[in-house]
Amino acid sequence: MPYGYNGKILRVDLTNQSIAVEEPQNILYCRYLGGGTLALYYLLNEFKPKSDPLGPENILVFSGSVISGTPAAGLSRFSVAAKSPLTNGFGESEAGGWWIPELKFAGFDAIVIKGKARKPVYLWIHDGEVEIRDATHLWGKFSKETQDEIRKELGDERVRIALIGPAGEKLINIACILNDLKHANGRTGLGAVMGSKNLKAIAVRGKKRMEVADEEAVKRLTKWLRDTYEEPHFSLGNLGTSRIITMLSEQGILPTLNFREGSFKGAEAISGETMSKTILVRRGTCYGCFVRCKREVQVGEPYFVDPIYGGPEYETVAAFGSMCGIDDLKAISKANQICNAYGLDTISTGGLISFAMECYENGILKKEDTGGIDLCFGNKEAMIRMVEMIGNREGLGGILAEGINIAAKKFGKGAEHLAMHVKGMPLPFHEPRGKTGVGLGYALSATGPDHMEFPHDPLWATEAGIALLRPLGILEPVDVFDLGPRKVRIFIYLQQYWNLLNSLGICMFTAKPFGPQTFNGIVDYVKSVTGWETSLFDLLKVGERHANMARIFNLREGLTAETDTLPERLFQPMEGGTLKGKKIDKEQFSAAIETYYKMMGWDPETGTPHKEKLAELDLDWLI
Amino acid sequence: MPYGYNGKILRVDLTNQSIAVEEPQNILYCRYLGGGTLALYYLLNEFKPKSDPLGPENILVFSGSVISGTPAAGLSRFSVAAKSPLTNGFGESEAGGWWIPELKFAGFDAIVIKGKARKPVYLWIHDGEVEIRDATHLWGKFSKETQDEIRKELGDERVRIALIGPAGEKLINIACILNDLKHANGRTGLGAVMGSKNLKAIAVRGKKRMEVADEEAVKRLTKWLRDTYEEPHFSLGNLGTSRIITMLSEQGILPTLNFREGSFKGAEAISGETMSKTILVRRGTCYGCFVRCKREVQVGEPYFVDPIYGGPEYETVAAFGSMCGIDDLKAISKANQICNAYGLDTISTGGLISFAMECYENGILKKEDTGGIDLCFGNKEAMIRMVEMIGNREGLGGILAEGINIAAKKFGKGAEHLAMHVKGMPLPFHEPRGKTGVGLGYALSATGPDHMEFPHDPLWATEAGIALLRPLGILEPVDVFDLGPRKVRIFIYLQQYWNLLNSLGICMFTAKPFGPQTFNGIVDYVKSVTGWETSLFDLLKVGERHANMARIFNLREGLTAETDTLPERLFQPMEGGTLKGKKIDKEQFSAAIETYYKMMGWDPETGTPHKEKLAELDLDWLI
Repeated sequence: MPYGYNGKILRVDLTNQSIAVEEPQNILYCRYLGGGTLALYYLLNEFKPKSDPLGPENILVFSGSVISGTPAAGLSRFSVAAKSPLTNGFGESEAGGWWIPELKFAGFDAIVIKGKARKPVYLWIHDGEVEIRDATHLWGKFSKETQDEIRKELGDERVRIALIGPAGEKLINIACILNDLKHANGRTGLGAVMGSKNLKAIAVRGKKRMEVADEEAVKRLTKWLRDTYEEPHFSLGNLGTSRIITMLSEQGILPTLNFREGSFKGAEAISGETMSKTILVRRGTCYGCFVRCKREVQVGEPYFVDPIYGGPEYETVAAFGSMCGIDDLKAISKANQICNAYGLDTISTGGLISFAMECYENGILKKEDTGGIDLCFGNKEAMIRMVEMIGNREGLGGILAEGINIAAKKFGKGAEHLAMHVKGMPLPFHEPRGKTGVGLGYALSATGPDHMEFPHDPLWATEAGIALLRPLGILEPVDVFDLGPRKVRIFIYLQQYWNLLNSLGICMFTAKPFGPQTFNGIVDYVKSVTGWETSLFDLLKVGERHANMARIFNLREGLTAETDTLPERLFQPMEGGTLKGKKIDKEQFSAAIETYYKMMGWDPETGTPHKEKLAELDLDWLI
Repeated sequence: MPYGYNGKILRVDLTNQSIAVEEPQNILYCRYLGGGTLALYYLLNEFKPKSDPLGPENILVFSGSVISGTPAAGLSRFSVAAKSPLTNGFGESEAGGWWIPELKFAGFDAIVIKGKARKPVYLWIHDGEVEIRDATHLWGKFSKETQDEIRKELGDERVRIALIGPAGEKLINIACILNDLKHANGRTGLGAVMGSKNLKAIAVRGKKRMEVADEEAVKRLTKWLRDTYEEPHFSLGNLGTSRIITMLSEQGILPTLNFREGSFKGAEAISGETMSKTILVRRGTCYGCFVRCKREVQVGEPYFVDPIYGGPEYETVAAFGSMCGIDDLKAISKANQICNAYGLDTISTGGLISFAMECYENGILKKEDTGGIDLCFGNKEAMIRMVEMIGNREGLGGILAEGINIAAKKFGKGAEHLAMHVKGMPLPFHEPRGKTGVGLGYALSATGPDHMEFPHDPLWATEAGIALLRPLGILEPVDVFDLGPRKVRIFIYLQQYWNLLNSLGICMFTAKPFGPQTFNGIVDYVKSVTGWETSLFDLLKVGERHANMARIFNLREGLTAETDTLPERLFQPMEGGTLKGKKIDKEQFSAAIETYYKMMGWDPETGTPHKEKLAELDLDWLI
């Protein structure tokens, strides 16, 4: 039994209410492992190209991996994938929490959902059993009420629920999917896909014990991971992901006022330090994890913020903070809560509002457009109101909810130059002018600009940092501003590693991508769970496979190489902050994109994978 | 100290008798490890393109690796490299024995030799000391006499000596370098390069203890390798490398009568079984190895064969046996001994004689050309005489010693169709019409057709075989006759692994390339010796680096893609044996070559590595 992993895939067709269980050949697991890569296997095989992402033809995949649910810390992540209604390309987004281990305990690695229910439904999956249940009474409800109701009617408070809020029901293309109300598959608008299928939620519960090939080794590696975990310099556990805010601001790479500037005078007020000293009531966590990087915040006045919705992470703090010129953590937390109640992606929502604010400041939008709101940077009431208006598709919020590029076209008057997006998706909050690899990531990620799809340059820029990448054979640092072939090489190697983490559902924080032993530790862990004689070579090939599959998906959907670019503003000098005047050289950037294509084994003009590359990756079925 | 290997490179300039010792940056060892890859680093940096391979401009490198001399079995191999006088491209050949560990004990990883001594010399390297000594009295002597004399004058019977015989002195382009009189760096004519430098021998002796990063781990892995070693079905230890002869003949893939046929009626008579029952007196071995696959044979009559010269291995048995239609192990052993005395490569010598025999049978050569010898297939006296005539550059032997392609042109009358060579080097004895990957190897190896530079198809053709390649992510078998992209993929992956073995100086027999744990075992071993956090990914990149560096070297020397082909006969039906009628489809083969170029990241027409590929491999200094 050389390929000794046995798993089950749940198949649901909502149109005809049919349920089936597949036990794929082990070779499928060897090649695709799980996460977005396994999802791509189904999408590329079964999704009819150019179908409507919000039609019943779209295929929605929830996928864990061959190691999800086993005990090591950081294995709580999973992918949701489908054609994205936001980018019209490959839509995929990961979340942590407790949902995927529970799905594994209930007997399944992944769920592949097709069709559209005639009326709202939810799935109830428990110990290998699957029910499609009526959700008419849940439709229109906020996420918390939905979760409460489902747990009540199933009579089990420990049911884990992935769900959409009103935003997903309203098919807003920046709607997310939430589990435990606070872990979001945020990006690429997958909540809308779920809504389009009339699927309100997926509730899971299971008691199956995970079988592993080598129990002793799994125990030993789990302990090793915990024992060798080193808290980063700015403590992730104590300060959460927004531990880096003051540092970024000092370095001039904290996106501020819609990427106009890179330093924010209110940085300290919205920092992880301030949060932990003021509104933080608990450090949240995911299944099996000792890091406890999640935040749970409480505010009494002037807004009520319930810790059950968690608290803002770095991206959310930047989205509603520095991007909107707001230095008030309470207001930011309120916006975060509204997003989680409506099921809105905080990154896209903050990006849209920041964009609208700059349009307003530039006179492109006027009070008659905003419904009387004084939508200037720094106005926190206006910001909070706009979040609700987007969630309700109300007034200006309704226009923004169409998508940043569509809204920009409607606004006219140069608004398009202020729309900070790639492939229609607003940027996350990392400044490419201060770290060019992030720019490559924004331009080249198949899912659009997503900070979870690639590594960030500072890791590669120092001798100490580069020493940690020793298992990849990268031996010399590369400057953060570099755009030459060595930057592209390191970007590609680490992108494949990131794809691997996402395929296995490993959290980048516990994976300590910044430690050389981790590369081999992950190999050992996969070996111990599956019994496969794998290697870093084999596993990184899965990451490469992912990149090629996602590229093919996008090309099929008509996303050409022209969409692999950055918003014009990033080729212009930064207007403020420590890096004032810094820009990305457009020619160098284009050259780097071409280098990327070539290094990937893709056509240098169209970025189409050569058939030889596909064959090399066992993807000849895609030729 | 992330890159913790310290080593020394000895530099010798024979023209001005200068000696220098370099201590390269550790990064050099990380990137090139040793063997042919380290040699290529020096050749590409310091060899002036298109210089005469037999002129003082040629650079001759003897190279072990970062793990040579440490205790695990199978680490006895090293490379000699230079521009080849036979192919006019990259010349490289590996040998086992006891020489490289001794060089390491003497303090050096490698020797880089330039220039030409005014009169014959030999090098004496002992415990970090280096002397250039007169060898006038040794010039013209056979290998055994040379070894005896040097040991006597150095007063140490345990000195290990790499040397040339008269063939190297006479600049015969199939001359080899021998250590302990029986381990040959056989191919690509490096003995002639040594001869052209007036360098008769390199004698080494040392007492330095190898330092390793983790002594316990090295011990444990050394023991693990020994404990887990499995004798192949046909015992390598008991039967030697010619254990496979009867099997190959039955399968129709034993090159017979100059590749005319694939089964030999005398196969059993020349088999490993017969040898062990008749003339074998001892199983020889290399440093640290328990396999003992080497042969030492003795014959009293009708020829005297001294076991000090070892005994014929598979290639030699096929060369003078099935290829020449000779079923007499005594005659074969005599031919082997003459080759080792003269310092001739047995493969090339046997290939030349077999070629001449077919020319004779076809009337292209006549008795007046052969000096009266009846050079028909099966005439063992004629065969033995021809070996001497080649070694002496005498008569027809002198013409053959010019090279098979030059001789064929001189003979005319269609002789070129009988010249079984690629890039001017005679083929080793594996039948591409029965295993197409061998054909790819013959055509694509930078050193010309060399069976040690790539793996052979039968390994990949069964479920059981393929399971052993699990760490490479190859999950499905590929038929021996296949020439599609999957065959090319597996060929490339394993070629990189073979290049890695050659870079590290690991013997393919103890490396058990046919065991999945070995891939990771090698990684662990390199880690333990060097302290590097390496991985299979990192190490295979060294193999890929090797392939690209060797390609660049050949392109610089004018070896174009046109030379990446096979002799015409292999595209014609086999004339006899089990596979009678089998041929390689020429179009399919050309397509496979193009697929190989593309999969390698090379230009599909010229096979030139794209600059992006070079940058990816840290070879941007070659652009």
